[in-house]
Amino acid sequence: MSDAYYLHLTDRLRELLQDPAAFGGDRLPAERVLAERFRTTRVTLRQALAQLEGEGRIHRSNRRGWFVSPPPLDYDPTRDAGFNDYVKAQGRQPRTEVLLTDTRPHRPAAEALGLPVDQPFHHIRRRRFVDDRAVLSESLWVVPERAPQLLEGDFTGSLWGQLRGRWGLTLAHRSLRLYSETLGAQEAEELGVAAGTAGLSVRRTIFDARRRPVEYDEEHWLHNALCITVDLENTA
Amino acid sequence: MSDAYYLHLTDRLRELLQDPAAFGGDRLPAERVLAERFRTTRVTLRQALAQLEGEGRIHRSNRRGWFVSPPPLDYDPTRDAGFNDYVKAQGRQPRTEVLLTDTRPHRPAAEALGLPVDQPFHHIRRRRFVDDRAVLSESLWVVPERAPQLLEGDFTGSLWGQLRGRWGLTLAHRSLRLYSETLGAQEAEELGVAAGTAGLSVRRTIFDARRRPVEYDEEHWLHNALCITVDLENTA
Repeated sequence: MSDAYYLHLTDRLRELLQDPAAFGGDRLPAERVLAERFRTTRVTLRQALAQLEGEGRIHRSNRRGWFVSPPPLDYDPTRDAGFNDYVKAQGRQPRTEVLLTDTRPHRPAAEALGLPVDQPFHHIRRRRFVDDRAVLSESLWVVPERAPQLLEGDFTGSLWGQLRGRWGLTLAHRSLRLYSETLGAQEAEELGVAAGTAGLSVRRTIFDARRRPVEYDEEHWLHNALCITVDLENTA
Repeated sequence: MSDAYYLHLTDRLRELLQDPAAFGGDRLPAERVLAERFRTTRVTLRQALAQLEGEGRIHRSNRRGWFVSPPPLDYDPTRDAGFNDYVKAQGRQPRTEVLLTDTRPHRPAAEALGLPVDQPFHHIRRRRFVDDRAVLSESLWVVPERAPQLLEGDFTGSLWGQLRGRWGLTLAHRSLRLYSETLGAQEAEELGVAAGTAGLSVRRTIFDARRRPVEYDEEHWLHNALCITVDLENTA
């Protein structure tokens, strides 16, 4: 019975969270107030809140209570849009900070692209924001032969746009690997969260139309900042 | 300097973990032994182990130390293979337990399929295993009009196979949403892990060739049990 009520309460709160005016702002009322409003115990209320936290709809802020989470960014990996484009298309504000650029070997890039482990790469590390919230820490590794003066460019915009425009490269063969991870110390620091926070890792390997290796990138997204969406039409 | 060494140590350990014989089994030596072997401090060693844990390559077992994690299952959402097929194709052993079947309304299914919220669904909840490790807890919600005597069937195999074979349905239009989550109490219990453990949520909405709503499902995968892989060929 209590189990059923917790599920019912979760549904009601989930529904309320879809209405921006339901709680008069981004901050939820105190747990005591919520428990009274929904005529339930703190224990049951916390079960429902934990469920909604797991779904990424609310988050806790240290000692300041519960807050409505911004909706995740939708990203369709089968399409070709860059970060700035798909963030803006969702009515949100993108921003990019370049953290470092250098040239050096990187074993995972070499392995993914089928190159010797001592192969140097042009490396760009950057942090990307949606509505001023840091959501993505990424490292891009580009084969220098494909894009020799790459590091003289500006990387707050689209890297792929530059590879296409400045070097006439096609990004013909792309493979993606996505998995759930816990953020390492460096990524967590760059995203302003505790190490061990849940994240989503996206690794991309790109070859051009002649199947020459072009780029490898490693993205670390903040837990719940990203929702992967794929629409499939099937003739079967 | 210590930072650089931690990265180097992580690389070396990652490489060793790819060799099944490196540690003589699934269990890593004690941290003290590892620190001696790699001539490093426990602090630096633990940084490297935490990094590899985040990548899903190793996991901790209560008081029994560190273990090599089984490789994640690859799943390509753009293809049409069922769980049993893609698990076996990767040389691993699938198993399915049906936890319950009933018929009742479910708001997220109704919303996803564009049906009234009091629409009842045939509901199947099951738990799926790879090599005897519970990796997936899922609920399937099928529109009863599409598959009237559905619940009389056996659900340890492919649901889609039944929908195709018994009712001649096509699963023509599929949309997927994937996001990183923390597992709720029920899913965590079904997967034998602590609530709040990282997971990957997959939600699928399916319409037939006539765009009639067929099925909605919610999957909760254990953190790191699944790696989404997509290969894209681009003519651009």
